[in-house]
Amino acid sequence: MLRFIKKISKTSGLPPGALVHVGERKVENIRIRVIDYDEAHIDEREPSSIEECFPYKETPAVTWINIDGLHEVETIKKTGVGFGLHPLVLEDIMNTGQRPKMEDLEEYLFVVLKMLTYDDKEGLVRAEQFSLVLGPHWVLSFQEKVGDVFEPLRERLRKGKGRIRKRGADYLLYALLDTIVDNYFVVLERIAQDVESLEERIMIDTTSDLLQTIHYLKRELIFFRKSIWPLREALSALERGESDLVQEKTAVYLRDVYDHTIQVVDTVETFRDMVSGMLDVYLSSVSNRMNEVMKVLTIIATIFIPITFIAGIYGMNFKNMPELEWSWGYPLVWCVIFVIGLIMVLYFKKRKWL
Amino acid sequence: MLRFIKKISKTSGLPPGALVHVGERKVENIRIRVIDYDEAHIDEREPSSIEECFPYKETPAVTWINIDGLHEVETIKKTGVGFGLHPLVLEDIMNTGQRPKMEDLEEYLFVVLKMLTYDDKEGLVRAEQFSLVLGPHWVLSFQEKVGDVFEPLRERLRKGKGRIRKRGADYLLYALLDTIVDNYFVVLERIAQDVESLEERIMIDTTSDLLQTIHYLKRELIFFRKSIWPLREALSALERGESDLVQEKTAVYLRDVYDHTIQVVDTVETFRDMVSGMLDVYLSSVSNRMNEVMKVLTIIATIFIPITFIAGIYGMNFKNMPELEWSWGYPLVWCVIFVIGLIMVLYFKKRKWL
Amino acid sequence: MLRFIKKISKTSGLPPGALVHVGERKVENIRIRVIDYDEAHIDEREPSSIEECFPYKETPAVTWINIDGLHEVETIKKTGVGFGLHPLVLEDIMNTGQRPKMEDLEEYLFVVLKMLTYDDKEGLVRAEQFSLVLGPHWVLSFQEKVGDVFEPLRERLRKGKGRIRKRGADYLLYALLDTIVDNYFVVLERIAQDVESLEERIMIDTTSDLLQTIHYLKRELIFFRKSIWPLREALSALERGESDLVQEKTAVYLRDVYDHTIQVVDTVETFRDMVSGMLDVYLSSVSNRMNEVMKVLTIIATIFIPITFIAGIYGMNFKNMPELEWSWGYPLVWCVIFVIGLIMVLYFKKRKWL
Amino acid sequence: MLRFIKKISKTSGLPPGALVHVGERKVENIRIRVIDYDEAHIDEREPSSIEECFPYKETPAVTWINIDGLHEVETIKKTGVGFGLHPLVLEDIMNTGQRPKMEDLEEYLFVVLKMLTYDDKEGLVRAEQFSLVLGPHWVLSFQEKVGDVFEPLRERLRKGKGRIRKRGADYLLYALLDTIVDNYFVVLERIAQDVESLEERIMIDTTSDLLQTIHYLKRELIFFRKSIWPLREALSALERGESDLVQEKTAVYLRDVYDHTIQVVDTVETFRDMVSGMLDVYLSSVSNRMNEVMKVLTIIATIFIPITFIAGIYGMNFKNMPELEWSWGYPLVWCVIFVIGLIMVLYFKKRKWL
Amino acid sequence: MLRFIKKISKTSGLPPGALVHVGERKVENIRIRVIDYDEAHIDEREPSSIEECFPYKETPAVTWINIDGLHEVETIKKTGVGFGLHPLVLEDIMNTGQRPKMEDLEEYLFVVLKMLTYDDKEGLVRAEQFSLVLGPHWVLSFQEKVGDVFEPLRERLRKGKGRIRKRGADYLLYALLDTIVDNYFVVLERIAQDVESLEERIMIDTTSDLLQTIHYLKRELIFFRKSIWPLREALSALERGESDLVQEKTAVYLRDVYDHTIQVVDTVETFRDMVSGMLDVYLSSVSNRMNEVMKVLTIIATIFIPITFIAGIYGMNFKNMPELEWSWGYPLVWCVIFVIGLIMVLYFKKRKWL
Repeated sequence: MLRFIKKISKTSGLPPGALVHVGERKVENIRIRVIDYDEAHIDEREPSSIEECFPYKETPAVTWINIDGLHEVETIKKTGVGFGLHPLVLEDIMNTGQRPKMEDLEEYLFVVLKMLTYDDKEGLVRAEQFSLVLGPHWVLSFQEKVGDVFEPLRERLRKGKGRIRKRGADYLLYALLDTIVDNYFVVLERIAQDVESLEERIMIDTTSDLLQTIHYLKRELIFFRKSIWPLREALSALERGESDLVQEKTAVYLRDVYDHTIQVVDTVETFRDMVSGMLDVYLSSVSNRMNEVMKVLTIIATIFIPITFIAGIYGMNFKNMPELEWSWGYPLVWCVIFVIGLIMVLYFKKRKWL
Repeated sequence: MLRFIKKISKTSGLPPGALVHVGERKVENIRIRVIDYDEAHIDEREPSSIEECFPYKETPAVTWINIDGLHEVETIKKTGVGFGLHPLVLEDIMNTGQRPKMEDLEEYLFVVLKMLTYDDKEGLVRAEQFSLVLGPHWVLSFQEKVGDVFEPLRERLRKGKGRIRKRGADYLLYALLDTIVDNYFVVLERIAQDVESLEERIMIDTTSDLLQTIHYLKRELIFFRKSIWPLREALSALERGESDLVQEKTAVYLRDVYDHTIQVVDTVETFRDMVSGMLDVYLSSVSNRMNEVMKVLTIIATIFIPITFIAGIYGMNFKNMPELEWSWGYPLVWCVIFVIGLIMVLYFKKRKWL
Repeated sequence: MLRFIKKISKTSGLPPGALVHVGERKVENIRIRVIDYDEAHIDEREPSSIEECFPYKETPAVTWINIDGLHEVETIKKTGVGFGLHPLVLEDIMNTGQRPKMEDLEEYLFVVLKMLTYDDKEGLVRAEQFSLVLGPHWVLSFQEKVGDVFEPLRERLRKGKGRIRKRGADYLLYALLDTIVDNYFVVLERIAQDVESLEERIMIDTTSDLLQTIHYLKRELIFFRKSIWPLREALSALERGESDLVQEKTAVYLRDVYDHTIQVVDTVETFRDMVSGMLDVYLSSVSNRMNEVMKVLTIIATIFIPITFIAGIYGMNFKNMPELEWSWGYPLVWCVIFVIGLIMVLYFKKRKWL
Repeated sequence: MLRFIKKISKTSGLPPGALVHVGERKVENIRIRVIDYDEAHIDEREPSSIEECFPYKETPAVTWINIDGLHEVETIKKTGVGFGLHPLVLEDIMNTGQRPKMEDLEEYLFVVLKMLTYDDKEGLVRAEQFSLVLGPHWVLSFQEKVGDVFEPLRERLRKGKGRIRKRGADYLLYALLDTIVDNYFVVLERIAQDVESLEERIMIDTTSDLLQTIHYLKRELIFFRKSIWPLREALSALERGESDLVQEKTAVYLRDVYDHTIQVVDTVETFRDMVSGMLDVYLSSVSNRMNEVMKVLTIIATIFIPITFIAGIYGMNFKNMPELEWSWGYPLVWCVIFVIGLIMVLYFKKRKWL
Repeated sequence: MLRFIKKISKTSGLPPGALVHVGERKVENIRIRVIDYDEAHIDEREPSSIEECFPYKETPAVTWINIDGLHEVETIKKTGVGFGLHPLVLEDIMNTGQRPKMEDLEEYLFVVLKMLTYDDKEGLVRAEQFSLVLGPHWVLSFQEKVGDVFEPLRERLRKGKGRIRKRGADYLLYALLDTIVDNYFVVLERIAQDVESLEERIMIDTTSDLLQTIHYLKRELIFFRKSIWPLREALSALERGESDLVQEKTAVYLRDVYDHTIQVVDTVETFRDMVSGMLDVYLSSVSNRMNEVMKVLTIIATIFIPITFIAGIYGMNFKNMPELEWSWGYPLVWCVIFVIGLIMVLYFKKRKWL
C-alpha cells in the first residue's frame, strides 16, 4: 500500500512550505548535472554545489539542470531561493506523493509527473516522482534517484541531431515529457504480455495461483491508472498554450504528448475491462469444474447405492427368506443389478451427464 | 493483445518526428495510386515514385493520392516534404497504434481512423489504420496494405455518377469517411449474428465452450469500441466546420457520418450490455444445473441410505436376534422399507424436488 | 438482434443520398393521406400519387401529409423534389435503423423517432420508425406501415375540438410528438406489469424459466431505452426554440413533451435497476435452495453412515467375536445406534440445521 | 410497480391540457383552506367553492390557498381560469405521476415535488404529489389528500412567530419547501433504522427472509431516490433567483433547502452503496454456510466409507477366508479401523477442516 | 448508521434559523479561546463569555476565536448577533450533520468541513464538524468538543515562526484548512494499514471473520468518502478567489489544500477499488475451498462405493453361489478391488484431481 499513499503524516502539523522529504531515500548523495546549450555549443558539467548553477539563469543559452536525490533539504532550499521558486513548489518537489499536475506561476511553469518502471522480480510497477520547472531559458528537473530514461535525449543534445538544439527551453520541456510518456508504453507492453499469458491460461487452469495473478494484475493496473490519469488534465492545460513560456510552435508537440497520454489511459482502461472479464471467466471455470466433480460423484453414487442395497437385502440372516433357497436366485440378483445400472446410465445419457 | 497495444517501444528514446514504422509490415512494396478528376475529365495512374505526384498539388482538379504500405520511410518522408506535412503528422501516419483523431493544421486537415474487417477464420475483428490528409485540392490517404473497401467509390468516380465529380476535395474526404463508417455496419452485423446465435444457445447449453465464446465476443466488442469510440469526437470537431478547407455544404454530409458513428457506438454498447446479461444467464444456468445434479444425488442417497441400514441390521450375526426367527420377519422388513421409501418420496414431493 | 441493428450492409458502398429502403417491407402499397385544415374548414383525402399533394405546399392552410410504407423509392424521391428535401434526409427516412434525432435545415425541420408497440404474443417491444418534416405550413410524416396511434388526433382535427385547428403546423408537429410519447407510457405500463408479476414470483419460484423471463425483460428494457434515449436530446434542441418554424407559444408545449420523455427514460432506468436487483435475488434463492438440498443430504448421510458401519461390523463372520455371543449384544447395538443418532440430531440443532 | 409508474394510459390520445386526474382518488371531497396574512393580521377560512378565493389574488396581503384532493376536474379548471394558469400546468397538477420540477412562467412559478411518508405497516415509502404555484402575493398548493406536515407552519403563521409574517409570498413558498425537505430526513431516519438492524443481522442470519428484507430495502431506496433526485435540479434553478417573483434575500434560504436536498440524495446514495455491500456479505455468508455443511458431510463420509468397506469385506461368505479363522482377526480389524480413522482426522487437521 | 445521518428529525417543523443542537453533546461546558496577534504581538485568552470577544472584531490585528461545544444555544445566538451572522449560518453551525460546503455571504465567508479521527478501539472513522467564519480581521471556529489537531499551529503562532504572523485572517483560514486536510492523510494511512494487512490475509484465510473485516473496511471507506467528497467543490470555489476577503497571494495556498484534498479523494477511490477486488478474491477462495472439499469427498466415495458393493455381493446368503466355494474366490475379490481402485486413481490423475 505504501506505493498508493506515501507516509506524509510526518508533515502533518508543520507550517506550509515546510521542507520535509516524503518518501524513501533512494540515493546516497545528491547529484547535480548541468547541460547548457544553444545551436552552436554544448557544455556538460557536474557541479558540486547548486550555487554554481545560478549564473546560468541569466544566460540566453538553454540550461537543463537535473538534480538526482531529494533528501538534502538545504540544497533544495537553496535551489528555491536561487531560481525564485515558491515555497509550496519546493514542498511539492520534496513530497513524492504528489498527483501529476501542472501549475502556471507566471514566472515559471511547474509540472509534476511519474516515471514508471516495471520491476520484473516482484511483478510490480514502480513509480518515481519527476518534477520539472520551466523558466525562460532554463529547465530544472528533480528525480528521486540516479538513473533515468533520458540518456538517448542527452545523446541527441550532444550530437546536435534534430530540432532540439535550435529550439528553446519549452522544447526541452516537451522532449522530457515525451520521453517519459513514451516510456509508459514500454511498461504497458510488459503488462500486455501478462494480460496475454493470463488469457491463454484462463481456460485451462483453475488453480488458486491464477486467482492471485489476476488480483495482482488488477492491482498493478489500478496503480498505473492512478499514476497517469491526472496527467491528462495537466498536459491539456499545458497544451492550450496559455503560458508565455510555451511558444505556439511547441504547442503542437505538446498536443502530441497529450494524445499519447490519452492512448495510454485508454489502453489501461481496456486492460482493466479485459482482466475483469477474465476474473468472470475464471470464476465460471471454477463453477464448471465443481459441476464436473459433482456429476462424477452423483453418477457413481446413484448407480451403486441402489444395487448395494439389494446386496444388503440378501445378506440378511432371516430364517425364512425363500429367495435364498432358489437355485436361480443368485443369477437373478445379478440381472436385477444390471437392469438397474442400465436404467441409471440411460437416465444420465438423457440428461447429458455422460 | 498486440491488437490492443502496438509495439511502439522501438520508438521510445527517438527524437519526436522520427519516422519508424510501428506495426506489422503487411505488404511487399509500396503502391501509389493517383486519381485526378474534375467534372469534365478523370485520369487514373499508378506512378512508380511519389515525386511524380507533386505537380498535382498545384492543379485546380481534385487529386486523390492513395499509398498502400507504410514501411518505406524514404517514400513517406518525401511525401511529407512534397506536400508540406509536419514531422509529427508523418510520425502518426507510420505509427499504426494511433487513436482515431482529427487535427486542423490550417494548411491541411489530418484525420486518422481505423478500417475494420471481421476475420471469419479466427473470429477476430481486425483493424487497419487509415490516415487522411486533406489539402485545398488534394487528398492523401495512407493504408497499411493493398486492398480496401473503396472500389465502389472509385467506380462512381470513373462513371461520373452522383455529386462526387462536381464537388471539391472536401467531398472526397467525406466520401472516404462515409465508406469506412458504412463498413463498420457490415462488421457489426457479423457480430450481431454471433450475439444472436449466442442468445439461442445460452439457455440450453452450459458447456465450457460457451463460456469461451462469451469471453471472445466480449473481447471483440471491447476492441471494436476502442477502435471507434474516439472517432465520434474527431468527426464532431470536423463537422462543426471550423476549417476553411471544408465547405459549408459539405458539413451537412459530415454530420450524417457523425450520426452513423454514434449509431455504431450505441449499438456496440447495447451489445456489450446484452452479452454481459448473457454471462449472468450462463452462470445462473450452471448453478441451476448443479442444483439439479445435487437433487438427484440427494434423492437417491436419502432414500437408499436408511433402508440399506435396515438391511445391514439384519445382516448382523448376533446369536440372540429374535426377529430373525419370526416367520413373517422378512416380509415385515420389506414393508418397513417401502414405508420409509414412501415417506421420503412424499417429502420430496412436498419440497417440489420431484 | 435484427431489432437492434437493421441490415444496412446493402447500402454500404453506395453514394450518399442513395435511396434504398432499409428494413422489412411491411406494407403492400404506399398509402398517402392528406388532411388540410384551418380554423374554418377541414379537408381529408387519399390521393393516388404524391404529385397531387404539391399544391398544398403553397396554401396558407395547415396540411398534414402522411405516407405509410417506405419501399417505393420513386415516390419518396418525388416527395423529396416536391418539398425541397435534402437527399440525406430522404436517405434517413428510408433507412429505418436511425437513432431518434432532430435536424434544423432552416427551410424545414426534420425529426426522426420511434413508435413503440408491445407485441403480447412474443413478449417483445416492437419499434416502427416515424419521420417528420415540418415546413412553414405543412407537416410530412412517414411511417413504415398502415396503422398508427393518431386516430384520436385525427378525430380531434375533424371535430375542431381544442386548440389544434387554431394553431399552425408547429402545433401539429407537437401534437404528433405528444401522441407518440404518450404511447410510450402505454408500453411502459405493460412492462411494469411484467416487472410486478416477476417480483411476486421471484421469492417462491427458482426454475430456469424465471431466469429466462428475467433475461427477456432485461433485453426489452435495453431495447426500449435504446429506442428513446436519444430522443431527449432531440426534443431538448427542439424546445430551445431556435428555429423560426416553431413559435414561442408552442415551445412551452414541446417542453411538456420533453418532460414526459425524461419521465419515461427515468422509469426505464428504475426498472432496469429493479430487474437487476431481482436477478440477484433469484441467484441467491438458487444458492439458498441448493443449501437446503445439501443440508438434507448431509443430515441423512451423517446420521446413517456411522450406524450402518456398526451394523456392518457385526455382520462380519469372524470366528472369535465375543459380542455376538452375549445375550444382550443385539439390544446394546440398538442402544448405541440410538445414542449416536441422538448426538447427531443435537449437533444439527446446535448448528441450526434442523 | 404502480408507485413507479402511474396509470396514465387513460390520458393517451387526449388533447394536451386535457384535465384527467391520474392517480388514486384519495379523498371524498375537495377541501379548500385559505390563510390570508400580513404583518398585522391573519385570517383563516375554509371556503366552499374556489370562486370565493379569487378576490384574494388582488389584495397586497399574502394569501395561501391550499386544495386537498385532485379528482374534481371542474374545481381545478376554475382555479386555472381564476389565477390565469396555463392548461399544461393544470394537467401536470392533476397527473400525479410528475417528476419534481420547477417552471418559470414569468407571471407565476410552478413547482412540483413529492411529500414522502413511511408506511410502517407495509414497510413502504409512500409518495404524495405536492404542487405549488407562486404568484406575486399568493401561493396555491395542491395535495392529493387531506392531512399534511404543515401544521407547525400554520401554527407559526397564526402566532406570528419568526420572520414569516413579515415576508412575502416567496418566503411562504420557501417555508413550504423547507418543511417538505425536512420531512425527508424523518423518512430517511426510519430507513436508516432498517439499514442498521439489517447490518446487525447480516452476519448471523442467512435465511431467505433476510434476502427479502435486503431486496425490499433496496427497492425503497430506489423509489426514494427516484422521488427526490430531480428536485435538486429544480431547486437549483429556483435558487439561482432568475425570477422576479423571488426576492434576493429569499434566495439564500432557498439555497439552504437546496443544500438539504443534496444531503438527502447523498445519504440515499450512501445507503444504496451499503445495502449493496450487505447483499454481497449475505451471499458470501450463504456460500460459507454451504461450505461448512459440505465439510461436515465430507468428514463423516470420508472417515466411515473406508471402514465400512472393511467391515463389508469380512462379512463376505467365502469358504476360504483365512483371516476369519485367526483368533486375533477381529481385534486386528478394530485396530485397522482406528488407524484409518486417525489418519483421516490428522489429514483434516492439516487442511484446517477441523 | 447514526454517523451517516444525524438525528435531525427534531428540527423538522421548526422555523428556519431555529437554533437546535443536532448531534451528540460531547462536552460539559462551552470553552472559548481567543488568540489575537499581529506581526509584533500575540495575546492568548480564555474569556468566560462570548461578549468579551466582540471588541476584537474592530481591531486591525488578526483574531482567532475558537469555540468548543455547540449545545449552548444562547452563546451561539449571541455570537451570531455580535458578529452579524445570518440565522441560517448559525443553524448550520449547530446542526452537525452538514455536508462540507463554502458560502460567500459577502461580509464574511462560511466554511463547514469535517475533522476525522480513527477510533482504534472500534475500528471506526469518527467525524467531528468544524465550522469556520472568516471576517475581515477575524476567524471564528466552532468545534463539537475540546481537543483538536491545531496545537502545532498555535505553537507556530506563539513562536512567530514562518509566514503566519505576517499575514492576514485569510492566511489563518488557510492554515486551519491545511491542518485538517493534512490530518486526513494520517487517518488514510491508518486505513492503508488495514487494507495492506487484509491483502496479506486474503489468500490464506477464508473464515467468516475476514468477510466481516472486508465489510467494515468498505463501510469506513464509504464514510470517509462521504465526509470529504463535497469538500473538493467547496475548496475549488474558495480557491477561485472570487471573494474580497481572500487575497490573491493566499489563493495559491488554497490551491495547494485543494490539490491535497483531491489526492485524498483519489486514494480513497483507489482503496475502494482494491477492497472490492479483495472481496472478489475472497469469494473465489471460498469457492475454490469448497471445490477442494468436494474433490476429496468424491475421490473417497468414488473409490469405495463400488468396492463396498462387491463386498456386499459376496456377503449375500444365497444357497447357490458357486464363487463362494472356489478356493481362490477370496483372493480374486481382492484383485478385482485393487483393479477397480487403480482405474479410479488413474482417472483422477487424468482429470488432475490428484
